[in-house]
Formats: sequence, structure tokens, C-alpha cells
Amino acid sequence: MRPQDLIRIKRDGGELSAEVIGEFIAGVSSGSIPDYQAAALLMAVFLRGLTEAELSAWAEAMLRSGRVLDLSAVPGRKVDKHSTGGVGDKVSLCLAPLCAACGVPVPMISGRGLGHTGGTLDKLEAIPGFRTDLSVDAFIRTVGEAGLALIGQTSDLAPADRKLYALRDVTATVESIPLIASSIMSKKLAEGIDALVLDVKVGSGAFMKDLERARELAETLCGIGRRAGKQVTAFLTDMNQPLGREVGNANETREAIDILRGGGPDDLLDLTLQLGAEMLILGGVSNDLDDALERIRKARRSGTGLERFRRCVELQGGDPRVVDDPAGRLPRALHQHAVTVQGAGTVAAIDAEQIGVAAMLLGAGRRSVEDRIDHAVGLTMCVRLGDELRTGAPLAILHYNDESRRAAAEAAVRSAFRLGPGPVTPPPLVYEILH
Amino acid sequence: MRPQDLIRIKRDGGELSAEVIGEFIAGVSSGSIPDYQAAALLMAVFLRGLTEAELSAWAEAMLRSGRVLDLSAVPGRKVDKHSTGGVGDKVSLCLAPLCAACGVPVPMISGRGLGHTGGTLDKLEAIPGFRTDLSVDAFIRTVGEAGLALIGQTSDLAPADRKLYALRDVTATVESIPLIASSIMSKKLAEGIDALVLDVKVGSGAFMKDLERARELAETLCGIGRRAGKQVTAFLTDMNQPLGREVGNANETREAIDILRGGGPDDLLDLTLQLGAEMLILGGVSNDLDDALERIRKARRSGTGLERFRRCVELQGGDPRVVDDPAGRLPRALHQHAVTVQGAGTVAAIDAEQIGVAAMLLGAGRRSVEDRIDHAVGLTMCVRLGDELRTGAPLAILHYNDESRRAAAEAAVRSAFRLGPGPVTPPPLVYEILH
Repeated sequence: MRPQDLIRIKRDGGELSAEVIGEFIAGVSSGSIPDYQAAALLMAVFLRGLTEAELSAWAEAMLRSGRVLDLSAVPGRKVDKHSTGGVGDKVSLCLAPLCAACGVPVPMISGRGLGHTGGTLDKLEAIPGFRTDLSVDAFIRTVGEAGLALIGQTSDLAPADRKLYALRDVTATVESIPLIASSIMSKKLAEGIDALVLDVKVGSGAFMKDLERARELAETLCGIGRRAGKQVTAFLTDMNQPLGREVGNANETREAIDILRGGGPDDLLDLTLQLGAEMLILGGVSNDLDDALERIRKARRSGTGLERFRRCVELQGGDPRVVDDPAGRLPRALHQHAVTVQGAGTVAAIDAEQIGVAAMLLGAGRRSVEDRIDHAVGLTMCVRLGDELRTGAPLAILHYNDESRRAAAEAAVRSAFRLGPGPVTPPPLVYEILH
Repeated sequence: MRPQDLIRIKRDGGELSAEVIGEFIAGVSSGSIPDYQAAALLMAVFLRGLTEAELSAWAEAMLRSGRVLDLSAVPGRKVDKHSTGGVGDKVSLCLAPLCAACGVPVPMISGRGLGHTGGTLDKLEAIPGFRTDLSVDAFIRTVGEAGLALIGQTSDLAPADRKLYALRDVTATVESIPLIASSIMSKKLAEGIDALVLDVKVGSGAFMKDLERARELAETLCGIGRRAGKQVTAFLTDMNQPLGREVGNANETREAIDILRGGGPDDLLDLTLQLGAEMLILGGVSNDLDDALERIRKARRSGTGLERFRRCVELQGGDPRVVDDPAGRLPRALHQHAVTVQGAGTVAAIDAEQIGVAAMLLGAGRRSVEDRIDHAVGLTMCVRLGDELRTGAPLAILHYNDESRRAAAEAAVRSAFRLGPGPVTPPPLVYEILH
């Protein structure tokens, strides 16, 4: 079928066959179909949507544009977790070692931060020497030896997705649930996993601001995964305030290590336990939730999770001493500055996106993909939703190296908080779980 | 504004400012905005539409991408006619000389045929030596001397339209009323005319198959023209059968000359008179319809229309003897073949598009823009809607040079006719006139 005939079908709301979608994605990937035809189809898909069958074919075609990893050499059911992105979300760093310690191998291929959201790779690269660009063979070896490995997208996994994503970015076709879902799932299915836990964030710091859209995305993701023969569980979790206290790279890694060492903030621990327990169930090492939770807790208490993380850092070229002395071994910013509240009241709302923007403005994140980041900078949140504040109380501590960046970040932090008169009930951490 | 931000506004159903549209069209024209962003916007416009203000800004921006002709050296109000395209539509060739003879200069820039529709330029080029690629100066001089000139689109008129049209063709964004209308009007407004008569064809051989869509297109075209300060009248006319008897190039030109010589078929004459009378009114040489019709009839009777055509042919490099001996001077096909009816009955419907396709299959038209055409070939229609046919009566005569092309054309002609039992009321020639 000529590309324009395929575009016409989708333009008019029709359904494309798997064969036709396969040809199109292969053509985009090889370059035989020019970008302008791909762009027209992306806009038609944005406005007309994809049916379930089209979604599966689309994700499958992107998956097949590259290599699919074979992790059969690693014993056990391999389970990954994917978050749709938020502010302060360092759960992967806590979760993967704990699951590995409980016998569930976690082959995790992650992304970098862009805009207000952070990226797992950036956080890990705050560890001196840590390499996220392992070869596929080294990745598989690391999963086998440490029980986990955390790397970046390699160029041979779902290359069509990379090409289409770059095009979506400049054609205003990013915010489409079918396109987002097939992009995520094509990469996750290429990891060669058996099961997947999804953390779909909802709220002011998330991509999805309301529960309904988040649920639609979660259901779409689950559908693609299940039709591809994988077990998938999706959690809809709160992102109306940063997760944990730290936002940045070195400070988030430090906070994640704190969790593995038995400390850390309650919300981060709670989410780690819940997602981790589900991974143990999907991984087949536990049959019920209480048992699974207890196994994760035990891996934390006993330090076996921390040891897995140490081994992973070591195998990936990083300085393993960070697990014993994170404060001393991770980079630190030169300056600290407390942003204090003007007036008094109860924290009624936090625009978590603005908190992420503040971190980006300090240098912790990227405005565009080619920006360099400063691993040492970020901020520490001092308050949470529902807290009562007196005049002059600190809202957040900025950690920065460049004085010229402070004012804009401070303004962003200040603009993120809305105080109210009365008691405020904080949102639940987990809204729904879709099995 | 970044192109992706502008695309986003249209994608979400918002309205673009004239300034932003101007920047975009200029960017497409200069190449600073890549094709893939243009393609995404075209699809968003296809699915979301354009408001009146956006339409005007879009057409104006395409107009401004090139040169606007200055015809002030030619006295009088300049009036053009544009048809949206049909089968056997040679009205321009009859009309322009008659209007010129009545004192209304007609600067006509036309297109070539594609698919089942013929093009005025192709018909004229059947005249030995006739050149449709005059320079702008020669074009203006010819309008001044002959009262009419008939040329092709020059590369400096609305170049953005040419670029966008090529992109629409391969991105399934052709059949959009706002995009069609702004494309037509940008080229017509670039001619430097004072007024325009539109012939929007409706029916089986037209681009618009139903009256409602045709009316929408007519209203859209009129709106753009009027907001640009031009007088515009639109006729909605029937295209449920070919106009006149001849379909092809040399034979259509011959039929048009017949009209100028006092002969020709009734329907072609009638439409020529009606459209021509309106041009005289818009051109300010007549105040009422009866007077205008009489002037056109007189120009035909007296042969002054024919003389204008002769002068135009001469000035454009063609052999002026065609006007005295069209049958002898225009190319003729080697073979004739009558397609006869199987069975008997009344002609209840004609798929005029299939008649156009039959002519194209004989070599009179183009399947794609790079195809060469044979000016000598085509077909002569023997029946019209409502005619009663006996078994074996001829439906059409094929004129062809290449025997291998006959069978497919014959099948197309045969498939175009539907016979019924009873009396059939033929459709009116003119459905509506929008002033």
C-alpha cells in the first residue's frame, strides 16, 4: 500500500491492518518512507487514535525494528518496573536491588531526564565512574551476577521508536496516549522480560494531570503488554508533590541508598515496598502480598538489597564505596539556600512540576536533550501537603553551584506552593491498582 | 512562534493569527520550515479546518509568497473564470474570447489535466505551435492586444502553493475544502484581477459529488475572494455527464471553436452564455442579465469572439488557421471505434468520472503529472441523460492511435452507463448561483 493511502485510511477514522502498520514502521525505520509522510500519519493517529489491534501491531512493529534481548541465560522470571515520570522519583534505585535480593532478576533499561522530570540514568551517573552504556552482553552478564543492571537505551533496541519520537517532538504529536503507550511498551518488550510493573503517575508533577487520563494510559499500556503475552500490573500513584524529600541527581541517589540502608522518607519506602511486592508476585517468588512485602522488608533490614546495589555499581564501573558513605562519595553543591515562606497557613497544593523546573533551573535537568547537567545540584523539600507553616518556615533548600541560577529557581519554588486556611487531607499514595 | 507550537494550536482546534500563518507559509516557501512540520500542520488543518479569518490569512500568505501581477496597463475591469474541474469542460476556450469581444479583458492562468479531468492548457496545446509558457510581460501584452491570454502557472506566482500542493498529494491532505479553496484563490488573486466567476462542478464527474459539499466549497471560495476585496460570483453547475459531446484535447478545442463559429452543443453554449453574462456584469460593461446575454450572443453571431480567439492564438505562437479549419488543422487520431449498448433502455445515470478515465486510458490524460499526453485522442459522446436507447445504439466513439489502449477504454465507457426502464428527468445545468 502506498503511504498516502494508508494515511488516508487513518485520517478518515478507519482501521489499519497489522501488515500495513508493519510495512509503514519498517519504512520509517529504513528511511524509505520520508519524514513528511510519517509526520502526517502521526497527526492523523493523534487526532483519530488507534484501536487495540492497531496499538499492538504498532508496538510490535517498533519492537521488531530492532533487537529483542534474550535473557534466557539468566535463571528465573525477569521483571522490570517502568514509571511514566515524576519529580523526585528515585524508586527504581531502591526497588531493583531489593527485588534482586529476593530472587527476581531486574533488567532495567531507563531514560534520561527532560524538562521538569528527572531520569534514572542521570541519577546513577552521579556515582563516580558509573557507566550506563554497557554492551548488551555486559548488561546480561550484570543481570546474571548482581540480579540487576541499570542501563540506557541502546541503539539497536526499537530504533523506529527513537526516530518517531524525534519526529513527534517537533510536530506536536507527543501527548497522544496510543503513541506514548506504544513507545513505552516497544522498548520494554525489547528487554526480553516476562512481566512488568507500571507506575503511572498522576498529578501536578506528572505528565497526566488527572486520574481519568492516567487510567486510560495505564489500561492502554496493560493491553499492549498482555496481548504480547506478558503479565502486567499498573499502579496509579500520586504525583501532586515530589516523591521523598530530594530532587536532583546526587541527592536523589543518596536518598535511595538511605532507603537501602534502612532509612529514608516514608512515602518513598511505602511505594518501594508496594511496587516491589508486586514484582515478587509477578516474578513467581511469592504468592501473596503479605509474604511478598515481608520478603522485601527483610531484604532491606538484612542489607542484602544494599549488597546487590553495591555489586551492580561495581560491575557497572562505579565506585562501590558510595553505598557505605553516600554523603562523602557523591558530588555535593557548593552553596545552600533556604527558600522560606512569606505568610503562614496550611500547604493546600504543590505544583510539583514547578519544583522540577526549579531543579532544572539550578542545572539538575535539561531544557533540551543536548543540555549538560550538574549532578551535584538540586533541592531538598522541607514541607509536604497538609503541613501547617509559620511565617518564615523553610519550604525547600536549594543546593547550587552557580549563583546566577539561584533567583529563577527560588521564584519557581515559591510559585509552586499554595497555602490555605484549613486542615488539608493529603492525597493517597496509591489511587488504584490495575491487575 | 516555533512551528511545533503553532501545529499544537491547530491540532487542539484553536485559531491561528494572521501573523503566525504568514510566518509559517513564508517558512515553508523559503525552506526554513521542514516538510515534516508542514505535513503535520496540513493534517491538523485537514481534520480541524480553518476559520474564515485563518482562510483569508492562509490564502493571502500564499499569494504573498510570490509575485502579484499588475494589469493596470490594460484598461477596464479584468475578470477571470475558474472551474473546479470536470469532464469535457472547455468553457474557458469559448468564454474568454466572447468576453474579450464585449470589452472585458480576461487574464486567464490555467492548469493541466490530472486523472479523469482535462486541463485548459492541454487543450490549447493541441493547436500547432501554441505556447502556454509566456513570460509575464508577454502575458500582459497579449491581454492588452487580444483582450485575453491563456497561460500556465508561472513559477513566481504563489510558489508556496506549489510546494504545499506537492506535499498534500503525498500526505493524503488533498480533499480539504479550506486547503483547496485557499490554493485556488491564492493563484487567482495573484493574477491581478478585479472580479472572478467560479464554476463549481457537482456530480459524478466532479471533485464534489454532492451539492452540499460543493456549496460549502463555493461559499469558502467566495468568502476568501470578497475579504480580499474582489467581486466574486459562484455558479454550482451539473457534472453528472460530460459537458458538450467531446472529451479529449484536439476534439474539445474543435468543439469550442464550433461554439465561436455559431455551432456547438446546447449545454456548452448555454453555460458559456450564463457564465459570460455574469463576467460582463462584474466587468462593468453591462448592468442587467438580459443585456449581458445579448451582448455575448452578438459577439458570437458577428464573429468578433472568433476574431479575438484568432488574435490570441497568433500572439501565443499558434497557427491561426485553426479557427477557419479546425477539423483540418488540429491533430486527428488514426482510428475510430463505436462503443455500442448491450440491451436497451433509458440512460438513467452516467459516471462521468469513468468517461474521463476512458479518455485518459486512450492517452488524452495523465495518470501522474510526469505522463505525456496524445492531443489527438479522446472520445465523442453519442448519448445524454434521459435518452432512450435501442440495442446496438452507439454510446460513444473512441478516437485512438494505439490499438492496445482500446479495450480498457471501451470497458470504462461501458461501465459508465446505467440504463433504466422509465423516463428520466435530466438534471438542470445550473443548480444555484451565489452572488
